Amino acid sequence: MAPSSSPLRSTTSETDEKYANVKWEELGFALTPVDYMYVAKCKQGESFSQGKIVPYGDISISPCSPILNYGQGLFEGLKAYRTEDDRIRIFRPDQNALRMQTGAERLCMTPPSLEHFVEAVKQTVLANKKWVPPPGKGTLYIRPLLIGSGVILGVAPAPEYTFLIYASPVGDYHKVSSGLNLKVDHTSHRAHSGGTGGVKSCTNYSPVVKSLFEAKSAGFSDVLFLDAATGRNIEELTACNIFILKGNIVSTPPTSGTILPGVTRRSISELARDIGYQVEERDVSVDELLEAEEVFCTGTAVVVKAVETVTFHDKKVKYRTGEAALSTKLHSMLTNIQMGVVEDKKGWMVEIDSCQG
Amino acid sequence: MAPSSSPLRSTTSETDEKYANVKWEELGFALTPVDYMYVAKCKQGESFSQGKIVPYGDISISPCSPILNYGQGLFEGLKAYRTEDDRIRIFRPDQNALRMQTGAERLCMTPPSLEHFVEAVKQTVLANKKWVPPPGKGTLYIRPLLIGSGVILGVAPAPEYTFLIYASPVGDYHKVSSGLNLKVDHTSHRAHSGGTGGVKSCTNYSPVVKSLFEAKSAGFSDVLFLDAATGRNIEELTACNIFILKGNIVSTPPTSGTILPGVTRRSISELARDIGYQVEERDVSVDELLEAEEVFCTGTAVVVKAVETVTFHDKKVKYRTGEAALSTKLHSMLTNIQMGVVEDKKGWMVEIDSCQG
Repeated sequence: MAPSSSPLRSTTSETDEKYANVKWEELGFALTPVDYMYVAKCKQGESFSQGKIVPYGDISISPCSPILNYGQGLFEGLKAYRTEDDRIRIFRPDQNALRMQTGAERLCMTPPSLEHFVEAVKQTVLANKKWVPPPGKGTLYIRPLLIGSGVILGVAPAPEYTFLIYASPVGDYHKVSSGLNLKVDHTSHRAHSGGTGGVKSCTNYSPVVKSLFEAKSAGFSDVLFLDAATGRNIEELTACNIFILKGNIVSTPPTSGTILPGVTRRSISELARDIGYQVEERDVSVDELLEAEEVFCTGTAVVVKAVETVTFHDKKVKYRTGEAALSTKLHSMLTNIQMGVVEDKKGWMVEIDSCQG
Repeated sequence: MAPSSSPLRSTTSETDEKYANVKWEELGFALTPVDYMYVAKCKQGESFSQGKIVPYGDISISPCSPILNYGQGLFEGLKAYRTEDDRIRIFRPDQNALRMQTGAERLCMTPPSLEHFVEAVKQTVLANKKWVPPPGKGTLYIRPLLIGSGVILGVAPAPEYTFLIYASPVGDYHKVSSGLNLKVDHTSHRAHSGGTGGVKSCTNYSPVVKSLFEAKSAGFSDVLFLDAATGRNIEELTACNIFILKGNIVSTPPTSGTILPGVTRRSISELARDIGYQVEERDVSVDELLEAEEVFCTGTAVVVKAVETVTFHDKKVKYRTGEAALSTKLHSMLTNIQMGVVEDKKGWMVEIDSCQG
């Protein structure tokens, strides 16, 4: 299980200091509360007007709201990075904005505009800039939520929507250094055709907790789900996409409605093509997975992570990891862009204005 | 769409009055806020201790809670009835308690015990007894929630659970008098094998809002979903179970994980057997549905409701409704027990103590 709220935050005053009083070396993927969050509201049938930065803390919500009763909620995840020359930048926020719009359409919600989303993320980061870790120590994880608020008793779209962004400095998502040990779940599925597997709906996550919990209890890092239609093709983990490598071909399941169109997935596909690999988005069978030379996962939280072993029924397969692995190279290529070690020729990084410490 | 919060509640003081100031004739299935709700909390790994009755109102919750981010929530629905001789009773609350336990196991949550659940429901009704409508004017709908509260950033079981019960006087769920006009959804599904369709998880509801919204916009009352595995068998509506009648045989889909084991569904099956019908729980194909003599739905909110028409692609089939219909008879049998018109020989009704007005 991921650790819960961490006690890393200091309570001393630090108003004018460049950094919050955080033990940066101890960061994992747990919440360290920051100073501020962003909140905007909108009535059904209207558009979001600008929200505001408010002190981070609990929100007030009706017991009779669609998010509490009917799971009408979407989330996003992106990160802010501090470069060696002390610029603070975020990675492809437009992609998260667009994905939230797709999800909102699926769940009959009103989303913020792309411009509003990006501006709100910027404001959230700027307000919490002292919580963006020093270079190499981690990132500021940003979590936008769009939830059905207001009051409605029957199953129907919400009368009000709340767009909220909170953040937390984070370190690595997985504690393992070498690679993940995955268990293929051949009994339960993550998504089905016509469902919500292709959008970042809250409804995709609590249903997989049990499978994840059981796998972790048995010593695995995460679970790999198979498609519900045939049970033969791989889909994704509980919270990240998967790729396999054989020869010069990198393959990953297609975004046909049951897997999340990951921003890191898309970026890594592009980077792999840049260095001469053929990238195929297509159905990938378990058989192919078991015969791959290399397997790796991508996601905002996990970045790029090698898979060391996959266990399917009684069969356990080991894959290449470490310095010679493509995943290691792709991880470096991506994080070098994100951290400003190399020039961002793709226009992926968005600068936060006025953020010099 | 179901109407949102209704303005039926009076603001005048009514402390010692038998009834709240509600326009009972105008009740639909919308929230009329009552005086009190019940709240209990429990840490992960511990058991629920008794909660308390508090004034009804918004709750305070972390933006980083599993219910807001990952859909870790269950709900229940049951009703309190006022009899002609002014007793207030609830219908089979033990069944809802047991279903919440099954759901909690599926979503890795800690549920209240059966005894705690039933006692909390009783306390909630007793505290709000003036909101239980007069006989024949409606019921007090009771909505227990079990939600993942506390703070956790990654996908994992919640560090804290909140068990909350709110209530509202309600009238009919559907406004139509004769019968429902259903559209068979042949493109999206409600549930899949290994998913959460068999428990009352919040994650089953927001994904069907779009299909429901589109059907209502086209003049239908509700949507009937087909199974995701074959697309050939009927499953349930957005929020109630379905039965078909042909000859002396009443058939309803089995509770094999993708449909909700409805309390009303189970009760109606028993009542149908009592009057000589053969009740079969088995796969029911769309073909059989289209050839049925009668179709009806069951649920706590909807009670028993005849289906007048079903539309599948371009085919529209009409069924028997009205006085001659079995659904009318079963509706009477059930509501007569619930309202105390006939003796409850089954032990289904639970009396609320000290509730004489």
